[in-house]
Amino acid sequence: MAPQSGEDDTALDPRVVRTRADVLHAAIGVLVEEGWDKLTHRHVAEVAGYSKATVYAHWPTRTDLLRETFSLFRDMPHHRPSGDLREDLVAELTMFRTAMQEYRLDRVLAVLADVAGAEPALAPVREEVVASGEHLVRDLLATVFSGGEAEAAAHMLCGVVLNPTFMHGRLPDDDLIRSAVDLLLRAAPGRSAT
Amino acid sequence: MAPQSGEDDTALDPRVVRTRADVLHAAIGVLVEEGWDKLTHRHVAEVAGYSKATVYAHWPTRTDLLRETFSLFRDMPHHRPSGDLREDLVAELTMFRTAMQEYRLDRVLAVLADVAGAEPALAPVREEVVASGEHLVRDLLATVFSGGEAEAAAHMLCGVVLNPTFMHGRLPDDDLIRSAVDLLLRAAPGRSAT
Repeated sequence: MAPQSGEDDTALDPRVVRTRADVLHAAIGVLVEEGWDKLTHRHVAEVAGYSKATVYAHWPTRTDLLRETFSLFRDMPHHRPSGDLREDLVAELTMFRTAMQEYRLDRVLAVLADVAGAEPALAPVREEVVASGEHLVRDLLATVFSGGEAEAAAHMLCGVVLNPTFMHGRLPDDDLIRSAVDLLLRAAPGRSAT
Repeated sequence: MAPQSGEDDTALDPRVVRTRADVLHAAIGVLVEEGWDKLTHRHVAEVAGYSKATVYAHWPTRTDLLRETFSLFRDMPHHRPSGDLREDLVAELTMFRTAMQEYRLDRVLAVLADVAGAEPALAPVREEVVASGEHLVRDLLATVFSGGEAEAAAHMLCGVVLNPTFMHGRLPDDDLIRSAVDLLLRAAPGRSAT
């Protein structure tokens, strides 16, 4: 990738891209392994192997650094819908569960819930991460539910992954995900019982 | 309350009871307002107006202090069931929502989810707090669901409070709670549609 001219040259300089990627990679590690209170310019710089001045140059405030680190979790993998609503919902919730483990989304979301409550500047990042995460579940549910019921159904299905993970410290198993989807679809207007 | 003889005299000495209550009250404030990383012997002692040595004497480790602070949230108020399943579930979820705000259970549970993941010694406290919190919802659901479906239904209803609060930063409104309960009861075996 060669440097290109444009309004924001620095963002396209491959050395700059590399530096930013290195630092954000280190920041994710710190966030997941050590907690958000350890995510300081000094400590992230140490872990990434750059000077503190470099980290400050790219992210002038700690909020800037937190915001960009969390924003990396906006693009989690999603299931590609097949058209079978039941299987699509089960597969998407199963991918949500996998991301909890593989991308340590369990730690990231727990920290994000905690941090966004304390630091309002981070609330918009949480909104983006969550909107992106719930998008497919909401689209799938919109084919059979509407209005307040669609909203409730979305929180209920996300809750089937969230509540076991956060409140019980264990991921939902396959049976739990299938039972939840079956229960919900049985209540869907115009769908016959399974 | 007069001092009594027994195996654990110090726990019943009213001065000791008072000291412990003062310190734990301060610890809750620190936890909710400043976050769990600020919950140290030194800082809690300062806020409570006792010496650091006193706090160490009662809770030798930081885990001891965290454990007892969180354990105060085992006894949240619950709805007293009337026998009308729909209204009982709606009322209990509404009390859960109220506790999120009034007792700052939103902060406590977010911190507990974060901390118990990082510090396994605190996982049993989380289990106790959560088991006590979910107990009535599970009992009510057991009257119409069984096995895996009862388990799924419990996570779905708790999720209707948890997902909006933690992931969207807002408490569920009355409509959302009612829609979730109606949806779920529509799927209950042997219950006619509402």
